[in-house]
Amino acid sequence: MKYCSTCSTPLELRIPEGDNRPRSCCPGCGVIHYVNPKIVVGSIPTFEGKVLLCKRAIEPRYGFWTLPAGFMELNETTHEGAQRETWEEAGAKIKLGPLFTMFDVIRAEQVHIYFRAEMSSAEFCAGEESLDVKLFSEEEIPWDELAFKTVSKTLSLFFADRKAGQYTLHTGDVYDHTDWAASQFKV
Amino acid sequence: MKYCSTCSTPLELRIPEGDNRPRSCCPGCGVIHYVNPKIVVGSIPTFEGKVLLCKRAIEPRYGFWTLPAGFMELNETTHEGAQRETWEEAGAKIKLGPLFTMFDVIRAEQVHIYFRAEMSSAEFCAGEESLDVKLFSEEEIPWDELAFKTVSKTLSLFFADRKAGQYTLHTGDVYDHTDWAASQFKV
Ligand SMILES: [Zn+2]
Ligand SMILES: [Zn+2]
Repeated sequence: MKYCSTCSTPLELRIPEGDNRPRSCCPGCGVIHYVNPKIVVGSIPTFEGKVLLCKRAIEPRYGFWTLPAGFMELNETTHEGAQRETWEEAGAKIKLGPLFTMFDVIRAEQVHIYFRAEMSSAEFCAGEESLDVKLFSEEEIPWDELAFKTVSKTLSLFFADRKAGQYTLHTGDVYDHTDWAASQFKV
Repeated sequence: MKYCSTCSTPLELRIPEGDNRPRSCCPGCGVIHYVNPKIVVGSIPTFEGKVLLCKRAIEPRYGFWTLPAGFMELNETTHEGAQRETWEEAGAKIKLGPLFTMFDVIRAEQVHIYFRAEMSSAEFCAGEESLDVKLFSEEEIPWDELAFKTVSKTLSLFFADRKAGQYTLHTGDVYDHTDWAASQFKV
């Protein structure tokens, strides 16, 4: 962020009065431009015990499998966002269940939240951002070809909870984010 | 948003290729400037059954009571954000418990999340953004002087769950946001 989006004046990085961290401040119009984490909303769509995954047609992680998810938009709820992403990426209509995971991904400046979901039918199809969409049983999950750590963690918790006979909310964060390859979950 | 924050060119509002909604696009450098909802993180700090509230020293809702909460920052987790806000606004150290409420506030372009929390001691003090900080028993809560709907809803759910002997996660949204005064919760 170099220029003020309100008046186009070059911005100054400084700590505003009464604040305690540097912000992009405009010496022209006085506006302070805050940057905050974004929310990624998604679902765990299931049909007859199988889970619906999408093969990514976009970067990052082109060709890897993921749960349907994307940035929450303005003018929608987290629930609506999860349903929209599932429709756009996987062509599936879902009945949303409870919130299942909420993970902080500090390095990406994001918070990822996944809801459990039941597909209304076996109908689905690859959206513009997917190369393929497929239902997987637990044994068929391509663990080594999953796109994101939050997806593999959400799936492994999902199957563990299902086996235990009780689903609970899981929150945590991908810490050790300075060494991404070695990073682990704190749940 | 009128000018590109990357190159200062005046922005155009149009639907980018492969997208389905208008975005602020830069004809100069090609950057698309997305705007997404922000996360407000807060806590329900308790000490010997009483809840800690802050009297706001800032707008909006100057002089009204609220739970400690504020915008989640970059480089912190939701948990760290809730602890930081509780420290900054109420001078209280807390041990964070489970996520208790997650509410969409579409009209404000925000998602509010509150964690249950236990104060480590009875020590607290008004921060820069608070006129006063006080512990309230359920009977003492100033329901008519609470700052925000998400705060009153979180508090009423908290006391109801406490009475029932079991706390559960509550999600929902303030719908009917076109008529804010009459708006209700869908939980
Ligand atoms: Zn400006
Ligand atoms: Zn530009």
